[in-house]
Amino acid sequence: MRPSKRAADALRAVTLERGVAKHAEGSCLVKFGDTHVLCTASLEDKPPSWLRGSGKGWVTAEYGMLPRSTGDRMRREAATGKQSGRTQEIQRLIGRSLRAVVDLVHLGEKQITIDCDVLQADGGTRTASVTGAWVALYDCVAWMKSRDMVGPKVIRDHVAAVSVGMYRGTPVLDLDYAEDSEAETDANFVMTGTGGIVEIQGTAEGKPFNEAELTAMLTLAKNGIVDLVELQKLAISG
Amino acid sequence: MRPSKRAADALRAVTLERGVAKHAEGSCLVKFGDTHVLCTASLEDKPPSWLRGSGKGWVTAEYGMLPRSTGDRMRREAATGKQSGRTQEIQRLIGRSLRAVVDLVHLGEKQITIDCDVLQADGGTRTASVTGAWVALYDCVAWMKSRDMVGPKVIRDHVAAVSVGMYRGTPVLDLDYAEDSEAETDANFVMTGTGGIVEIQGTAEGKPFNEAELTAMLTLAKNGIVDLVELQKLAISG
Amino acid sequence: MRPSKRAADALRAVTLERGVAKHAEGSCLVKFGDTHVLCTASLEDKPPSWLRGSGKGWVTAEYGMLPRSTGDRMRREAATGKQSGRTQEIQRLIGRSLRAVVDLVHLGEKQITIDCDVLQADGGTRTASVTGAWVALYDCVAWMKSRDMVGPKVIRDHVAAVSVGMYRGTPVLDLDYAEDSEAETDANFVMTGTGGIVEIQGTAEGKPFNEAELTAMLTLAKNGIVDLVELQKLAISG
Amino acid sequence: MRPSKRAADALRAVTLERGVAKHAEGSCLVKFGDTHVLCTASLEDKPPSWLRGSGKGWVTAEYGMLPRSTGDRMRREAATGKQSGRTQEIQRLIGRSLRAVVDLVHLGEKQITIDCDVLQADGGTRTASVTGAWVALYDCVAWMKSRDMVGPKVIRDHVAAVSVGMYRGTPVLDLDYAEDSEAETDANFVMTGTGGIVEIQGTAEGKPFNEAELTAMLTLAKNGIVDLVELQKLAISG
Amino acid sequence: MRPSKRAADALRAVTLERGVAKHAEGSCLVKFGDTHVLCTASLEDKPPSWLRGSGKGWVTAEYGMLPRSTGDRMRREAATGKQSGRTQEIQRLIGRSLRAVVDLVHLGEKQITIDCDVLQADGGTRTASVTGAWVALYDCVAWMKSRDMVGPKVIRDHVAAVSVGMYRGTPVLDLDYAEDSEAETDANFVMTGTGGIVEIQGTAEGKPFNEAELTAMLTLAKNGIVDLVELQKLAISG
Amino acid sequence: MRPSKRAADALRAVTLERGVAKHAEGSCLVKFGDTHVLCTASLEDKPPSWLRGSGKGWVTAEYGMLPRSTGDRMRREAATGKQSGRTQEIQRLIGRSLRAVVDLVHLGEKQITIDCDVLQADGGTRTASVTGAWVALYDCVAWMKSRDMVGPKVIRDHVAAVSVGMYRGTPVLDLDYAEDSEAETDANFVMTGTGGIVEIQGTAEGKPFNEAELTAMLTLAKNGIVDLVELQKLAISG
Repeated sequence: MRPSKRAADALRAVTLERGVAKHAEGSCLVKFGDTHVLCTASLEDKPPSWLRGSGKGWVTAEYGMLPRSTGDRMRREAATGKQSGRTQEIQRLIGRSLRAVVDLVHLGEKQITIDCDVLQADGGTRTASVTGAWVALYDCVAWMKSRDMVGPKVIRDHVAAVSVGMYRGTPVLDLDYAEDSEAETDANFVMTGTGGIVEIQGTAEGKPFNEAELTAMLTLAKNGIVDLVELQKLAISG
Repeated sequence: MRPSKRAADALRAVTLERGVAKHAEGSCLVKFGDTHVLCTASLEDKPPSWLRGSGKGWVTAEYGMLPRSTGDRMRREAATGKQSGRTQEIQRLIGRSLRAVVDLVHLGEKQITIDCDVLQADGGTRTASVTGAWVALYDCVAWMKSRDMVGPKVIRDHVAAVSVGMYRGTPVLDLDYAEDSEAETDANFVMTGTGGIVEIQGTAEGKPFNEAELTAMLTLAKNGIVDLVELQKLAISG
Repeated sequence: MRPSKRAADALRAVTLERGVAKHAEGSCLVKFGDTHVLCTASLEDKPPSWLRGSGKGWVTAEYGMLPRSTGDRMRREAATGKQSGRTQEIQRLIGRSLRAVVDLVHLGEKQITIDCDVLQADGGTRTASVTGAWVALYDCVAWMKSRDMVGPKVIRDHVAAVSVGMYRGTPVLDLDYAEDSEAETDANFVMTGTGGIVEIQGTAEGKPFNEAELTAMLTLAKNGIVDLVELQKLAISG
Repeated sequence: MRPSKRAADALRAVTLERGVAKHAEGSCLVKFGDTHVLCTASLEDKPPSWLRGSGKGWVTAEYGMLPRSTGDRMRREAATGKQSGRTQEIQRLIGRSLRAVVDLVHLGEKQITIDCDVLQADGGTRTASVTGAWVALYDCVAWMKSRDMVGPKVIRDHVAAVSVGMYRGTPVLDLDYAEDSEAETDANFVMTGTGGIVEIQGTAEGKPFNEAELTAMLTLAKNGIVDLVELQKLAISG
Repeated sequence: MRPSKRAADALRAVTLERGVAKHAEGSCLVKFGDTHVLCTASLEDKPPSWLRGSGKGWVTAEYGMLPRSTGDRMRREAATGKQSGRTQEIQRLIGRSLRAVVDLVHLGEKQITIDCDVLQADGGTRTASVTGAWVALYDCVAWMKSRDMVGPKVIRDHVAAVSVGMYRGTPVLDLDYAEDSEAETDANFVMTGTGGIVEIQGTAEGKPFNEAELTAMLTLAKNGIVDLVELQKLAISG
Repeated sequence: MRPSKRAADALRAVTLERGVAKHAEGSCLVKFGDTHVLCTASLEDKPPSWLRGSGKGWVTAEYGMLPRSTGDRMRREAATGKQSGRTQEIQRLIGRSLRAVVDLVHLGEKQITIDCDVLQADGGTRTASVTGAWVALYDCVAWMKSRDMVGPKVIRDHVAAVSVGMYRGTPVLDLDYAEDSEAETDANFVMTGTGGIVEIQGTAEGKPFNEAELTAMLTLAKNGIVDLVELQKLAISG
C-alpha cells in the first residue's frame, strides 16, 4: 500500500490551466496533486549569440523554487548568489526535453524561454515542469502563428514526463514526496506523444535495480505518459 | 481621467486569500488588481545570531519577482547571482514595516521570515506585499498561539501600504503600471490600523512636489489604508 | 536637550571644499560636523548603452564607506564581494536627487558618475553626500562648459538634503550618530533651491508618527535646506 | 563503421594506474583511450556538519576539466567564478555512484572526497571518472584499514560506468568525442560488480529512442562494465 | 632629466599626518607628492580563527583605491564584486611588511587590521601605504599600551618602502606616475629602520636589468628609506 | 645539511616533457623533483579587446593547483568562486615573465594563453611553471611558424625561473617544500638565457636579509638558471 493510497499505476490528480500569466506569450499552471508549478513562455526576437546567422532558433528553460514551496524553508537562490547543482540539472533537463520536439529551423532566429517556478512542492517537480512547460510552449508558438511569425511545423510532437519508483519492492507511478523519500529507486521518464523515449534518469537510492525492474518501471511510465499527453490535448483544445 | 478609469481616490479590486501554501505557517495571496503577490510566513525556532540570548525575536522579509511577472521578461536574480538594489530596498521596507507593529520581546527568541514573491506585476508590488505580508504574519502568529508558543500580545496593530501619485497634476490613489510610469510623483505610504505613519517614501520622478501636494497625497493614502485594514480584518475573521 | 547641545533647528558646522581631487572633473569634500564625504565627478564621453542614440545623457552615483569610517570597523564591500542593500539604496537616492535638477537632453550623450566616499561617519552620510555631490556635479559641468562641450542650461537648480528626526518627542534638524540611534523617527528630505521637494524618506524606528509631526519635520528641513543651498552658492562663487 | 574503427561492442584501451599522487590517501590515473582523468581520494577526519553525531560518514566527489583538456580552450571555472551546470551534474553523479557501494556506517564519522580532474578529454569523461574514482576510493579505504581506522566491510562492491550510444542506428559502446557528437542517443550506465544498475542517464540528442534500443544499449553496457570491473580487480591486485 | 625635475636620488615631498580618523585606534594620512593614502588601524580583541589558543596575534592589511583616485575612473571593486589581482598582491605585501617588524607573541591574541585607502594616486601607492601603515600601527600599539593591553616590545623596528626605477638608463628614486609608466624597470624595496631588507620586488617592464643596476637601485633605495624612517620618527615624536 | 641532502647549489632533478596534451598548440609537463606542472599553450586568433587594431598580440597565463596536489586538500577555487590572491599573483608573474622575451609586434594580433596546472606540489611551483611555460610557448610559436602565421623573430630569448632561500644562514638553490617552510628568506629569480634579470621577488619570512645575502642568492640563481636554460635547449632540440 502506497502512503498516498493510490494504485501502483495511478497518477495524482493532474490539471493544466492555461492563460494564467497576463504578460507571457504562453503560460500554464500545472498541478500534479500538491505539486504546483507556474510555467511561462517568453519570446525573444533573436536567438542566443552563438546561433546568430544560422537560421535556427532556440528553446531553453529556467527552474526555480519559491523559498517556502517546501516543508522547510529553503534559502532563496537569488540571495545565496548561485543556483544549486540540482536547479541547474533540472533546468537543463526541461530545455533538452522541449527541444526534442521542436523544429528549431522552422522556429527561425528567435528564442523561447520557459520559466518553471515551483509554487508548492510535493515530489515530482521536474516531471510536472516538463509536462506544463510543453503547454506554455505550445501557446507561445500559437501566439506566434496568429501573428504569422512562424509556419505550422514548429512543434513536432507532445512531450511529457513522469516519475516511477521502486517502493518497497513494487514499481509505482508518479511518486509524491512521502513516497519519493522512501523509494529504493527513483526514475524520471520523458517521452513524446508517439511513445519515443527522450530521456531516462534512473537512480538507485538504496539497493541497485535490475533489468526486469527497469522494464517494469518503463511500462508504468509509458502508460502514465499516455494519460498526461491526453490531458495536454484536452488542455490545448479548450 | 486615469488610464484605469478609476476615481482619483479608488483602490483597485483588492483580495486577500489565506491558506494558499500547504507548508507555510501562514500565507496570503494578495491581489491589487492585476498585481498578484504570494506571501508566506516561515517560522524558525531561533533568532538571527546577533539576537541570541537577548530574549527578543525578529521578523524579516525577502522579495522576488518571477522572471515573467513583468511585461518584458526580467533576468532571474538567482541566475545573475545577485539581488538588485531595487529588490533589496523593497525587502528592507517590508521587514521594517512589519517590525513596526510586532512586539519582538513577546515574540521571544524566534524568527519569522515573510517571503513576498510577485507572480504577476502591474504596479504597486511593494504596497501589495506589505499588505499581504501582514496577513501571512498574523496567521503565523495564530499558528504559534494555538501551540502555546507565544502569548496574546505579539502583534500590536495592523499595518498596510498604498501608493499615491501626482498624475497630470492630480493626486490619485493606488497607481497601476500604466499610471505609475507617467506619474510626476510616486509616493508609498505605510500606516498602522490606528493611523500612525510608519514609512513615507516620496519621489519626484518629473518635477518636484510641494507641501500642499504632499498633504493631499497623505489624505488619499490615509483613506486607502483605512479600507485596506478593513479588508485585512475581514480576511482574518474568515 | 540634544546630545550635541545644538538648538533643535541648528545644522552642524557644514563646509564644502572644492577642487580636492587632482584627476576628477569636479570634486567636493563635504563636512557635516564629523561626517566627511569625498565627492568626485567623472565624465564619460558616452551615456549608458540603453541611452545610445537617444540624444540624452545620464547622471549616476556610487556610494561607499571606508572600512574604518565608523565606530567599529565594517567589512570592506570589495572583499565581501557585494554591496549591501543599504549602500545600493543610498547610491540610488543620490543619483535620483541629482537627476531631478539636471536637464539630460542639454547634457547630451555623456555620463557623469558621482562617487561619494565616506572618509568619516557620524550620522547623515547620505544627506551630506547629496549636498556635496551637487557641488562636484556643478564643477564638472563648469569644466565641460569651459571646453564648449555643453550649453548653459544643464543644471536647472540646486539640490541639497538634510535629515530631521523626532528626538524625545521634539523634531530636531541634522542628526548626528548619537542622536540618530536614539531617535523615534528618522526622515531625510531632498529639496531644490526653489523649495520643491524631490524626495522624502521617513521611517518610524520606534512608534509611528502623525501628520502634525511630519509637518513639523518638513518645516525644519525646509529651513535647513535653505541654509545648505546658501552654502553651496558661496562655495561655487569662491 | 565507427569513426574509431572499433567493433560496436569494443571498449577503448583502458588503463588504471594507481599511486600517481604523492600526497593523496588513494589515487588513480584512468585512461579510456585519449580521455585521461586524474582521480585522488582525500580523507578528512570528520563528516560534513549535517552528519556530526550520526555515526555515519560521507563520500563526495568534485569534478573539473583543465582549460585545455578540450579541442578549444574552455574558460577556467575558477576564473569565471562558478562551476557550470554540467560540472555540477557530473560531480553529483560520481558521488552518488560511489555511495551506492559504500557502507557509510562502517566508514564511521569521516569524509572521503574524490577529485576527478580531466587532464585530456576525448568523450566519456564522466564514465572514466566513476571507474577511476572507485580505484582511488578503494586505495583510500585500504590506507585506512592498514591504520586500523575502519573494519573490513566499508566497500561492498565494485562500481564502474560506461557510455553507450545509438550511432547511425546501431548501438555502440564507449563513445569517443567524434562518435559522441554525432550519436542520436547518448546513454551513461553505472553498474556494480554484481550487475546491479546504479544509474541510467539516457538522452536522445536527435530522434527519440524506443524500448528495443534501450534494451540493446543496456546489454552492451553490461558487457562493457564486466570488462571494466575486471580491469579494476587487476589494478587493485597489482 | 626626470619629468618631475627631481634629482635622481630625491624623494617627493613626503608628509605623515597622524590622528586623522576619529574612530580608529591609529591613523595616518601619508602623502608622497600627489599620492595620498589614508591609513587606519583597527584593533580586534581576538586573532583570526587559525590562531585561537596559540598565544599569538596577527597584523593584516587591506588596500583599496577610490574610483576616481586615478586619471581615468576605475570601476569600484565593491560593485564589480571582486578585488583585482593587483589589489590582493599589494595588500598581501603591506601585511607581510608590517609583520616583519612586529612581535606577534608580545601582541597577544589580538588582530590589528590596517586599511590603506588611496584617495589620490600618482605612482607609488604601495610604498606610501607601507610607510604610512607603520605609523598607524605604531599609534594603535601606543593606544593599547596606554590601556595596559600590551607590554613595550610589540614593535621591534621601523619599516618603510620606496620605489626605484631605471629611467632612460639611470636609476631614479620614488617614481611618480609619469616616470613609472616610462621606466624600463620598476622595483619596490621594503626595509627596516636598521637597514635590513624585508622585501624586494623588481620587474623589468622593458629590457631585463643586470646585477650592477640592481646594486645601484638598492643603494638609492637604502638612502630613501633612511629618510623615510627619519620622517616616521619625527611624526611619532610630534 | 639540507633536508633534501642536496648540495647548496644543486637543482632537483628537472625534466621537461613536450607534446603531452593532444589538443594544445604547445605543451610541457615540467618536473622539479616532486613538483609537477602541466603547461599548455592555447592560441586564439585575436588579441584581447584593448589591443584590437594595434597590430600587437598578447601572451598571458593562468595558474591553478589541483585540490589534492598538496599535503592537505585545498578547496577547489572553482567551487569557492574565486581565485586566491596567491593564485593571481603567480599567474601575473608567469605572464610578465613570458612577455619579457616575446616580441608582441612580431606575434601580431593573436593571443597565446599558457595554462599552468599543478598536478603535484612540493615547493617551487611558480618557478617550475615559468620554466615549463616557456617550452609550451616555444612549441606554440613553432606550430604557428610551420603554418606561416608568424615570422622568425617572435621569441627573443629563453626565460626560466628558480627559487633561492636562506636556510639556517646559508643560501640554497631550488627549495623543496620542507626547506621552503623553514627558510628565513625565500626569493624567486626570473632570468633570460642571456643572463638578464626579468623579475626578483625576495621576501624575508623571518629576519630581514642584507645586501651580501642578496648577492649570494643572486649568484646561486644565475647558475641555476644557466642549467635550466640548458635543459630547455635540450628539450626543444629533441
